[in-house]
Amino acid sequence: MEKGACLYEGKAKRIYQTEQPDVLWVEYKDDATAFNGEKKAVLEGKGVLNNEISSLIFSQLKDAGIDSHFIEKLSANEQLVKKVEIIPLEVVVRNVAAGSLVKRLGMERGTVLTSPILEFYYKDDALGDPLINEEHIRALTLASVEELETIKASALQVNEQLLTLFKEIGIQLVDFKLEYGRDRTGAVLLADEISPDTCRLWDEKTGTSFDKDLFRFQLGSLQEGYETILTRLGGRK
Amino acid sequence: MEKGACLYEGKAKRIYQTEQPDVLWVEYKDDATAFNGEKKAVLEGKGVLNNEISSLIFSQLKDAGIDSHFIEKLSANEQLVKKVEIIPLEVVVRNVAAGSLVKRLGMERGTVLTSPILEFYYKDDALGDPLINEEHIRALTLASVEELETIKASALQVNEQLLTLFKEIGIQLVDFKLEYGRDRTGAVLLADEISPDTCRLWDEKTGTSFDKDLFRFQLGSLQEGYETILTRLGGRK
Repeated sequence: MEKGACLYEGKAKRIYQTEQPDVLWVEYKDDATAFNGEKKAVLEGKGVLNNEISSLIFSQLKDAGIDSHFIEKLSANEQLVKKVEIIPLEVVVRNVAAGSLVKRLGMERGTVLTSPILEFYYKDDALGDPLINEEHIRALTLASVEELETIKASALQVNEQLLTLFKEIGIQLVDFKLEYGRDRTGAVLLADEISPDTCRLWDEKTGTSFDKDLFRFQLGSLQEGYETILTRLGGRK
Repeated sequence: MEKGACLYEGKAKRIYQTEQPDVLWVEYKDDATAFNGEKKAVLEGKGVLNNEISSLIFSQLKDAGIDSHFIEKLSANEQLVKKVEIIPLEVVVRNVAAGSLVKRLGMERGTVLTSPILEFYYKDDALGDPLINEEHIRALTLASVEELETIKASALQVNEQLLTLFKEIGIQLVDFKLEYGRDRTGAVLLADEISPDTCRLWDEKTGTSFDKDLFRFQLGSLQEGYETILTRLGGRK
């Protein structure tokens, strides 16, 4: 497989063509951004950590029968994925109140929810990724009713798997963000990444954050936090 | 019926006890507020106009088989209603893109929606009445699943009636806000008011606003706009 032209550079990744039209080459960057791009930094090693963690998680999801765009890890900070057209939705699953549940809705941080909350955000930087409901998704024609049902069922299934995975390593899975895409046949496929950039992960005993909140709120070394997750998951740089 | 102690004073109304425990006396005020209370004014005659219009609309909804807390109009700015415990949700129905659909979601103002959009806002002044989804309603225990189904069905039914009512008088019903409450038996009942304070109403031909946007954006005399609605509905001060 050969790395072709760069198709897209996002906040945390660069996407390259390959000689196969349905396969893309992903390079994880060391760039960290938060608060819709208002806070920025380059954190050496972050790209490697996220690629390692995301590859591990997508592999384990595959073993559990949940397919995604992930094909294989190529190097410390690179992986191959199936080409999909990203559906412009951030699909958030929440098990514990944190972030906007606290700030927007006044819930107490750390409250364990009796059942998971699903949220959709409209992926649009200019609009600041606003929260939307299923009727907005329909009106904006972001996804069909059938695609939305597939996404909702998949997101809850991913949550079940991740809850188990993280519980085994003493981590409370507070919340996380997923993205989905359509492959060439129109099938909806889990895409993007699952990493401490896209999850809130708290130590079950101490409540310490091992996720991007380390960077967002200057709570400590992001790299050390992400390394803790990678190590506990049984991986290494 | 006698007016008892004032139980509650809101932005636009005062609520009084009566000698009947299940009946309240509502007095419409001339106070206008917008942008979560940031903009304020006293607009003489507004209370009378809203009471007249809301009484007319609730009567017509009753004739169409949609019950509400409304009992009867008492005077130009007063009415009797059934006592309900208000469910802290603003239920918004949208037929045409305006307001937050334009500002938050980037839709073009005036776009006619292929089917109505329902939204729920958490009635909480301190939080700024944030948009929420049905799972937030469940997590915040604001309404049961059954109550929510009742509310959704009722809101769409009210929309059908109001669309017809306003179409007959040359008005485009852009969007409106409803509130619901629980009576003594726990039954969910349409409550609050339906007036140009709670609806966006545009002239079908000219697009002129006859609603609170007159006050929000200083588009013209609020009282003249509201009087147009009252007159076209066949009522008078």
